[in-house]
Amino acid sequence: MFRLFSQTRRCLQVKRALKRQEWPLRPAHLTAAAQQASFSTASVEHLSRSDSWPKDVGILALEVYFPSQYVEQVELEKYDGVEAGKYTLGLGQKQMGFCSAHEDINSLCLTVVQRLVERSRLSWDSIGRLEVGTETIIDKSKAVKTVLMQLFQDSGNTDVEGIDTTNACYGGTASLFNSADWVESSSWDGRYAVVVCGDIAVYATGNARPTGGAGAVAMLVGPEAPLVLERGVRGTHMEHVYDFYKPDLASEYPMVDGQLSIQCYFRALDQCYSIYRKKIQSQWQKVGVDKPFTLEDFQFMIFHTPFCKLVQKSVGRMMLNDFLAAPNPDTQSGLYKGLQAFRYSAQQLAGSRIGAFSYGSGLAASLFSMRVSQDAAPGSPLDKLLSSLSDLQTRLDARKQVPPEEFAEIMKQREETHHLVNHTPQGSKDDLFPGTWYLERVDDKHRRQYARRPL
Amino acid sequence: MFRLFSQTRRCLQVKRALKRQEWPLRPAHLTAAAQQASFSTASVEHLSRSDSWPKDVGILALEVYFPSQYVEQVELEKYDGVEAGKYTLGLGQKQMGFCSAHEDINSLCLTVVQRLVERSRLSWDSIGRLEVGTETIIDKSKAVKTVLMQLFQDSGNTDVEGIDTTNACYGGTASLFNSADWVESSSWDGRYAVVVCGDIAVYATGNARPTGGAGAVAMLVGPEAPLVLERGVRGTHMEHVYDFYKPDLASEYPMVDGQLSIQCYFRALDQCYSIYRKKIQSQWQKVGVDKPFTLEDFQFMIFHTPFCKLVQKSVGRMMLNDFLAAPNPDTQSGLYKGLQAFRYSAQQLAGSRIGAFSYGSGLAASLFSMRVSQDAAPGSPLDKLLSSLSDLQTRLDARKQVPPEEFAEIMKQREETHHLVNHTPQGSKDDLFPGTWYLERVDDKHRRQYARRPL
Repeated sequence: MFRLFSQTRRCLQVKRALKRQEWPLRPAHLTAAAQQASFSTASVEHLSRSDSWPKDVGILALEVYFPSQYVEQVELEKYDGVEAGKYTLGLGQKQMGFCSAHEDINSLCLTVVQRLVERSRLSWDSIGRLEVGTETIIDKSKAVKTVLMQLFQDSGNTDVEGIDTTNACYGGTASLFNSADWVESSSWDGRYAVVVCGDIAVYATGNARPTGGAGAVAMLVGPEAPLVLERGVRGTHMEHVYDFYKPDLASEYPMVDGQLSIQCYFRALDQCYSIYRKKIQSQWQKVGVDKPFTLEDFQFMIFHTPFCKLVQKSVGRMMLNDFLAAPNPDTQSGLYKGLQAFRYSAQQLAGSRIGAFSYGSGLAASLFSMRVSQDAAPGSPLDKLLSSLSDLQTRLDARKQVPPEEFAEIMKQREETHHLVNHTPQGSKDDLFPGTWYLERVDDKHRRQYARRPL
Repeated sequence: MFRLFSQTRRCLQVKRALKRQEWPLRPAHLTAAAQQASFSTASVEHLSRSDSWPKDVGILALEVYFPSQYVEQVELEKYDGVEAGKYTLGLGQKQMGFCSAHEDINSLCLTVVQRLVERSRLSWDSIGRLEVGTETIIDKSKAVKTVLMQLFQDSGNTDVEGIDTTNACYGGTASLFNSADWVESSSWDGRYAVVVCGDIAVYATGNARPTGGAGAVAMLVGPEAPLVLERGVRGTHMEHVYDFYKPDLASEYPMVDGQLSIQCYFRALDQCYSIYRKKIQSQWQKVGVDKPFTLEDFQFMIFHTPFCKLVQKSVGRMMLNDFLAAPNPDTQSGLYKGLQAFRYSAQQLAGSRIGAFSYGSGLAASLFSMRVSQDAAPGSPLDKLLSSLSDLQTRLDARKQVPPEEFAEIMKQREETHHLVNHTPQGSKDDLFPGTWYLERVDDKHRRQYARRPL
C-alpha cells in the first residue's frame, strides 16, 4: 500500500465548491510558554510549568501537489489487454497521475513546501519544525528534510526540528502526530510545524501497476486551527506482516501480496475502530453521556486509499462493526441509514467530526479524528483553508493526458535512469506546472541538484 | 557519520563502578490525565484540560547491545599497511566491534528491546509507544518497528504508536525527542515509550573503514525519570549538505567526504551551542540569574562520536565558543580550568547536568541536556539505572577478538550476501552472546526470519 491517506471524493467536492483565495497567516506566539520555567546555575533545579496545552492544535493550512500528467485507466485496460472494467470498476480507479524522470521525492517536497509557505505568506523563520513522512527512499541516510533546508537558506533559520519518518504510507500520519505532540509539549517554542507527506508509488508491469500514484501534501500545524485533532481518542494497530514491502533497494518497485494486504487493511481497520470507540465512549461516560459510538458520529470519513474500491468496502466494514458491537441492534434501520451522514453540503462541514483511517503496510495503522471549527464565516480560518483548496479541480483539469504507450515508456525510462550518476534527466520540462521543482542533474558523486520552473 | 551519540569514557567509568542489579519497574500511571476531557455527541465540543505536563520526563532505564566480536585497531593498522598510530592516535580508536553475517538491524533491535523489557521486568502491554531511529535501511518501506511487534505478540498489545525515523546518526535523537513530546502531550495514555537507536556502520576498504561500528540502545522513556530531559533549552541546526550519505541503495557502504563532514560537525556544534546558551540564559534571566552559560555549567558532556579524536577536539571547541562569547574573558584562568567539571567521581553524578550533542550527516544536529536526579540512594531510580549498566565492562571484556584477516573476510561475506534471497547466513552462531537474536533465513520473497540464542 503506497499512497498517504487520501480523501474521499465527497471531501474534495466540498472544497471544490469554495473559491480560491490567498491570505496571510498571523504570526504564531513567539513567546513560548515553554520557556516560563524556573532554573538555576549552582544546582540544577526541576523545571515546572502549569500551563495547559495550546488551544485547538491541528491543521491550519494545507497544500497539495500532484504531477501534471496522468493516464486514463480505461485506456490502460485496453493497453494491458485486460477485460474492460478491471481497473475502472473492479478497483474503482479513473485516472492515474505519474511523474516524469525529472521528478523525484525531493523535488515533489520542495514544490509543495515552497507553495505552502508562499501562498500562506509565512516567513521561513516562523517555522520551528519540519518533518517528512515518505517511503520513497532515494538515499538511505540523508533525509528529504535536509534537502528542504535549502528553502530556508536566505532566512538564516536553521533551528528547525524534525527529520524523516518511514513506514509505507503511514509516515505522513506519524509525522502529523509527532508535530501535534510537539506543539503540546515543553519542546514547543511557539512557532509552526510543517508536516510533509509525499510518495511516488510505481509498480512493475502487472496487476498492481494501475494502483500507482504520486503526490505530496504539506500541512501547517499549530494552535487555533480550523481542523482540530481530537485529543486522547486515536486507536492504533501495529503488526509484523510482509504484505507490501521494498526489500529490493535498487528498484523503485515493491513486493506486493495484494490479497494479504487487503486482509491486513481490514483487520487493522477493525482493531483501530474498536480502540477508537472504546476511548471516545470512555470520554463520553466521564461527562455523563452513555451511548455507543457509531459511524453516524463521524460526519465525514477519510481513508487511506490503496485503490478506490477498498474505501467503499471500508465504510461497509465499519457499519458491520457497529452492528456487531450494538447490544440490541435495530435490524430495521436499513443498510443505507449510516450513509446519511455522508450527504453533507459544504456549509455543514463546520462543527463536524472527520474520522481518518491511515494504513501503512508492514504494518502500522491508526484511526483518529478531527473536529472542524464552528466558525465558517468569510475570513475565518476554516474559510481560508477551504478557499486555498478550491483550485484543486481546476488544477486536476489542467493536467495533461498521456497515452498508455507513453506512460509505459516513461516508466521504463525511470527504471533505467533513476539511480544513474553523471546524469541529466531527458525530455522537456515544459509540461511541469509553473513553480514546480525538478531534478536538474545528478553528479558523479550522486549529489542531486534541483531547479524550479518559473511561476 | 554513523554511530548514535556515544558516551565519553568518563561516563562509562561512572557506570562501571556500580554493581549490576536487576529490578522491577513500577507500572506507569495507567489512568491517563489526557483522558479527563469534556466531550459530547450531538455537537463536537472543544476538549480542554488544565493538567500540567508529567513531572521529570526522561530516561528511566537503558539497555545496550554490541556485537560479540571486535578487531584491534593496532592490528588493523598493520593489516592495512598504514603508519603505526594512524587509527589509534590519529583517530583515537582502539577496538572496533562488527557484526557477522547473522546479524542485521532487525536482529540487533530485537535483542536490545527484549533485553530491556526482560531485565526491567516490564509487561509488554505497559508500552504505548515504540520508535526506532536508524540509517541501516534493509527495506525502504517496512519499518524495523513493525518487525519488533513480534515481541508483543503473546501480550496481544498492538496499540503501540511510533515508527522509524531516519537521518544518518540523528534518528535516535529525533526518536527520543518525539517520545518525550508524546509523554507531555494529550496523546499520552499513561504508558511507557521505548526508543531504540541502532546501526551497523560499515565502510568500504580505505580511510573510513576503521571508523565503523555497530550497536543498539533501547531507552525506556516516561515521567519521574532519573535522567530528566531539560525543558525548552535544546538548540538545533539543520542544513542541506552532502558530507556523508547513502545513495547507492544496493550497497551497505556510504559515500563520505571526511574533511567536509568534520567541518559540518564543528559548524553544527557552534550553532547548536549558541542557540542552547541563548535559550538557557533567557530562562535564567526570568528567575533573576544574569550570568553567561559556559561549559562549566555542564558537569558531563556526551558527544556523537564519528571517531574518538573528534570528541576531544569538540570539548576544546566549546571552550573556544565560551571564550568568544564572554564580554570580558579572563585570560588568566588557564586552559584546563574548564575541564575540572569532568573530574567527577561516581557519587557526584546525582544532581548534575549532562550536555549531549547529537550529529547526523546530511545534516541534522541538536545540543540538549539532561538533569540527573538528586536521589542516588540505594534503590533509587538513579541507582537502578546505573546498576543495570554496571556489567558493560564485563560484557565488553567478554567479546571475542578477531584478527584483521578474518574481519576483512566477514566484511566481504556481508558485501556478497546481505541482499540475497533464498539465503541462510553461513558460519557458526556460537559466538553470539546468549539471548541474541539473529537472522536465520531470507526466503525467496525477501521475507526475513529470526531466531534467538538461548539465554
